[in-house]
Amino acid sequence: MKRAVVLLSGGLDSATTLALAASEGYTCYALSFSYGQKHDVELAAAKKIARSQNVVEHRVMTIDLGAFGGSALTDADIAVPEAPSDGIPITYVPARNTVFLSLALAWSEVLEAQHIFLGVNAVDYSGYPDCRPEFIAAFQDMAALATRAGVEGEGVQIHAPLMSMGKDDIVKLGMRLGVDYSVTVSCYQPDTAGAACGKCDSCRLRAQGFANAGLDDPTVYA
Amino acid sequence: MKRAVVLLSGGLDSATTLALAASEGYTCYALSFSYGQKHDVELAAAKKIARSQNVVEHRVMTIDLGAFGGSALTDADIAVPEAPSDGIPITYVPARNTVFLSLALAWSEVLEAQHIFLGVNAVDYSGYPDCRPEFIAAFQDMAALATRAGVEGEGVQIHAPLMSMGKDDIVKLGMRLGVDYSVTVSCYQPDTAGAACGKCDSCRLRAQGFANAGLDDPTVYA
Repeated sequence: MKRAVVLLSGGLDSATTLALAASEGYTCYALSFSYGQKHDVELAAAKKIARSQNVVEHRVMTIDLGAFGGSALTDADIAVPEAPSDGIPITYVPARNTVFLSLALAWSEVLEAQHIFLGVNAVDYSGYPDCRPEFIAAFQDMAALATRAGVEGEGVQIHAPLMSMGKDDIVKLGMRLGVDYSVTVSCYQPDTAGAACGKCDSCRLRAQGFANAGLDDPTVYA
Repeated sequence: MKRAVVLLSGGLDSATTLALAASEGYTCYALSFSYGQKHDVELAAAKKIARSQNVVEHRVMTIDLGAFGGSALTDADIAVPEAPSDGIPITYVPARNTVFLSLALAWSEVLEAQHIFLGVNAVDYSGYPDCRPEFIAAFQDMAALATRAGVEGEGVQIHAPLMSMGKDDIVKLGMRLGVDYSVTVSCYQPDTAGAACGKCDSCRLRAQGFANAGLDDPTVYA
């Protein structure tokens, strides 16, 4: 039995990643975070996705990254940009993937799971440093030294299967795997009903992905 | 101005580390965690230490590592051992230092602090994988790739100044720096008043350190 902890945000990429891990025979444990993000419709989406994929367990951990601030996704005083920007955008949440992977590492060790999956992607992405392959590789190297599992066994493998895929190919893959994209939320600033803004980076990348794939996007816009 | 985030547990090592960082001219921000440890007298100790060292800010983050279990320090069903054990002891908390450093990394990025201090020690220690120099080095390499600060600047430096010191030398250093060890709590299972058991690994290492240094240990035993 191959056990895996899968980071699940409620967005398109992580939903596809979970479906892929399940299709490859991993027994999946989903992990989401209430981390101080402005909206929690993505957590409601994560719950629906976890249920639809029959994960063994879905945990939602609370961790207040919003207390640190410094991001448009967690700080009510910083607006989500509605046009592309140069460099690392203000929607970047400081050290978010490092924190999320560290907690996945803690859970994987207790579960004796040797695999962690996350849906980061370095092609149609927002320019976040912690979505790059070199970051994932460095995290895996560090994890091998950090844990009992690393010292006494083989350590954990970090899988980022979407890393080098375009958004269009991700959507096509998910469709083949039966992912219900109507329950996923990609928008950085959805309204309380979960309707998308259509203007933020994440909305733009998603719409382009569906368009390039020649598929209908079930996203509901505000 | 050199800003530093200092991990502060309330124990002897982190109190000494904070005093050392302050003595070297760092402007210190202390970070502690309510992580599901069985006792919270160590957090009360951390607050006293932070106050005595005039840190700019002391944050206590809540993060429920106890929900994962797997350690005598967080799981009420696992007893703290009262004799030395082979290998990695059951008091090891899965991925704890990785999680703590990740959150320090997040805060350091928002503060634009280029330094993180922690009091890990590989000499008189309990055999935890995440207290070894190779782990600290790997974390720093990972951090350089994880953050905006790493991509756009020099990244953060992780300081573990006690790494290769014996507990006796740590105590002597702290005494020179004026650390009030009477407020620190080292015991893995103190009573509600903070009195130490005198039997766990951590109590034994501390008592030995003071004895070897020829100094009086102000620890109150139950």
